[in-house]
Amino acid sequence: MALPTQHDDFPGWYQEVVKQADLAENSLARGTMVIKPYGYAIWEAIQGALDLRFKQTGHENLYFPMFIPARLIEKEKEHVEGFAPEVAVVTHAGGEELAEPLIVRPTSETIIWDTYSRWIQSYRDLPLLYNQWANIVRWEKRPRLFLRTTEFLWQEGHTAHETQEEAWEETLRMLDVYRQVAEDVMAIPVHMGRKTPTERFPGAVETLTIEALMRDGKALQAGTSHYLGENFARAYGVTFLGRDGEEHFAQATSWGVSTRLVGGLIMAQGDDKGLRLPPALAPVQVVIVPIFRSDEEQARVLGAAESMATDWRERGLRVKVDTRDDLRPGFKFADHELRGVPVRVEVGPRDLDADQVTVVRRDVGGKTAVPLSGAADVLTGLMPEIQQALFDDAVAFRDANTHEVASLDDLRGAAEAGGFAVGAWCGDDACEATAKAETKATIRFLPLEREDPGASCAVCGQPGLERATWAIAY
Amino acid sequence: MALPTQHDDFPGWYQEVVKQADLAENSLARGTMVIKPYGYAIWEAIQGALDLRFKQTGHENLYFPMFIPARLIEKEKEHVEGFAPEVAVVTHAGGEELAEPLIVRPTSETIIWDTYSRWIQSYRDLPLLYNQWANIVRWEKRPRLFLRTTEFLWQEGHTAHETQEEAWEETLRMLDVYRQVAEDVMAIPVHMGRKTPTERFPGAVETLTIEALMRDGKALQAGTSHYLGENFARAYGVTFLGRDGEEHFAQATSWGVSTRLVGGLIMAQGDDKGLRLPPALAPVQVVIVPIFRSDEEQARVLGAAESMATDWRERGLRVKVDTRDDLRPGFKFADHELRGVPVRVEVGPRDLDADQVTVVRRDVGGKTAVPLSGAADVLTGLMPEIQQALFDDAVAFRDANTHEVASLDDLRGAAEAGGFAVGAWCGDDACEATAKAETKATIRFLPLEREDPGASCAVCGQPGLERATWAIAY
Repeated sequence: MALPTQHDDFPGWYQEVVKQADLAENSLARGTMVIKPYGYAIWEAIQGALDLRFKQTGHENLYFPMFIPARLIEKEKEHVEGFAPEVAVVTHAGGEELAEPLIVRPTSETIIWDTYSRWIQSYRDLPLLYNQWANIVRWEKRPRLFLRTTEFLWQEGHTAHETQEEAWEETLRMLDVYRQVAEDVMAIPVHMGRKTPTERFPGAVETLTIEALMRDGKALQAGTSHYLGENFARAYGVTFLGRDGEEHFAQATSWGVSTRLVGGLIMAQGDDKGLRLPPALAPVQVVIVPIFRSDEEQARVLGAAESMATDWRERGLRVKVDTRDDLRPGFKFADHELRGVPVRVEVGPRDLDADQVTVVRRDVGGKTAVPLSGAADVLTGLMPEIQQALFDDAVAFRDANTHEVASLDDLRGAAEAGGFAVGAWCGDDACEATAKAETKATIRFLPLEREDPGASCAVCGQPGLERATWAIAY
Repeated sequence: MALPTQHDDFPGWYQEVVKQADLAENSLARGTMVIKPYGYAIWEAIQGALDLRFKQTGHENLYFPMFIPARLIEKEKEHVEGFAPEVAVVTHAGGEELAEPLIVRPTSETIIWDTYSRWIQSYRDLPLLYNQWANIVRWEKRPRLFLRTTEFLWQEGHTAHETQEEAWEETLRMLDVYRQVAEDVMAIPVHMGRKTPTERFPGAVETLTIEALMRDGKALQAGTSHYLGENFARAYGVTFLGRDGEEHFAQATSWGVSTRLVGGLIMAQGDDKGLRLPPALAPVQVVIVPIFRSDEEQARVLGAAESMATDWRERGLRVKVDTRDDLRPGFKFADHELRGVPVRVEVGPRDLDADQVTVVRRDVGGKTAVPLSGAADVLTGLMPEIQQALFDDAVAFRDANTHEVASLDDLRGAAEAGGFAVGAWCGDDACEATAKAETKATIRFLPLEREDPGASCAVCGQPGLERATWAIAY
């Protein structure tokens, strides 16, 4: 079935890409999803890139239970107010009503910091640099595959430090790890910035974010890294004997990204033909489509295709031969384009006669005849080239959709046009709320370090305090 | 704190090893555990070994929701009877009571086969060879770290096939993958066999198992692979148009191993000093303990140790330098023995003067002076040697603790002595129950293919039908 164009119906386009590319589907319990093998393979590639970098920066994985006694979650006041409306509750187990209901984790700060209170006694126990890969439940009113589901997969880092400086450095370090994976692996350019107080994680002193632009001009919060100060240490009594012989509260960070990133990848890299996968994470980087008419041709072409695939795999490429014999080549071409396979190689009897293959890039199209002897080199070279081209294309799109705004009218116009709107903000919650009410755009981020905007607030005209970036967001 | 000996108090020994080696601890909700970084790293190594082999045998990963509508689980009669007493139930979410309660998955056959009914239409859709890594909840009456916890981590494979033959081959293939990981990676010899009808997975036609012997003489079911026939296809209406133009029910298998394996590893490989980790999965294969008295010596020895570590890591070894400066070498030796690090390298000023290091194997002990220039080769060579030695030791232990039995008295004696008891069984459930009631031993497995025991039933004296292996089990 044909996709709607992105321009005509972006939500419909997204839904059809997710469905037709076999990425995910709705499941029975409201708001839950099945992540299908192709979608899960993309998530595994993202996981692998993150996990490698977590370990390179000194972190270890562990696992905390997903059931949190209700009393525990009530200890950090802002935190419980933020999450109480979204939690799922187990009231019965083992055939009996439980004496105390169990919350299914909406995030794990509470159980982790309660546990840290027993693990941390002295500065010698610090830092704790831990991460977990886990499923999370938040009851979503308007679920949407990958973007908002009641159960999703994520990682959550939870670190404890001696000093504010160390914790703040960690918060920045992990934000930069997220930026690296978004930009270098997913080919999605992101802005790093601070959230405004109203957009902070419940219980955080400061929330940092990476923000990406989708092809419909909406922004996506793609990952957050929180500086929690000593809020959770105070709530759960996590003190340690310092080098100075005094008791101190431990300093905390937490940071997470989720399967939402797969949704962001689709919307940042897709085009009217479907998904476009960056080679660094594509489960299949090169698909070989054999072209034949007779059984004799089929045997010859398939044999050659399998032999090429073996060669190219030895060169480190992820190669698949599309051996399906009930589908025509034209259908297969469209199918692999929809699935975003970076390069298609067509091989038919005439190609073999000429000792060549036909190479087609997913991102820019166009057929190129390549001598078989040099094909492995060409394909190997194409991978970083396509990776860079997708990134450059996304940067160009973002640049073309970023506008300076000096007034509420400007902001209204920019919000309607889509993209990022950059202007001055006085720092007042009220102006943030007015802009949202009038334009639906929210402040996506402020610079990591405050910058003097050198202009008056785009909303109220009072002196500008911060340079802010607005957008309508997912 | 000193460990109890295995002989004096095996449960106490186990509990202290888990605690002192920082593998896991009890968490707040009853029966749940925190898997600590060292324990989780062991699980990650097991996961990696399994996942590699799953993919090599053509399987893909995916992810199904953990919440299963209650009505769904009721469709396969044996299945619901088997699991109903163990499930946890979510009754409230998003601040409201749910119209239909949600079961937290105790295993995923129900939701997966309901979904497969929409994925499978034709023989061209088969086989489906899927696996998921997930958390599972079963309300345990007597929880025990790693062995029985209300929440645990596992993988569950769920495959669908055209024919019984294919499904049966898959059931055997995955059992053998489990055997490979147990034997080649974990160095635990296992028996592969069939479960008796009373020990089958609820809903299975045949349950295959790998069974290992722990150092206290009890058996552990370390993994199971189920041939489900068309039971789930019938319950969830999964039919396909066959090559013959007729509708058929799809044939099913499912197979799983869990974090229970970590418990099995501890109990199969441990000794009175603690854990003994096979090099193939040890998070740290070689620990360097620097020995010094003065600051000057410390600088010299630590510098040399870091340089060795870098060299050895380049040779592919996982090396850690124990730089803790508040602990004495003797404490560190015991600590790394407790944690099961396969090889300890001691380096002091006198070693450096003599251009040598002192190498100590965890499994057999004894100090060996090794010239520094050849140390990398020695250590690299030691890894497979220790791996094999641990396996051989476990085989010898199992052989020494396997006895033939010809009567209930024999079985009673064998059960008291510990280990496997092998004898004839008439095939009657009643005899199985009698043996269990009289000796606490259960039939752990029958051979994969029935063998004529050539003797009369050890319990009732009637003609023997099967060669059975009994043990008291975890």
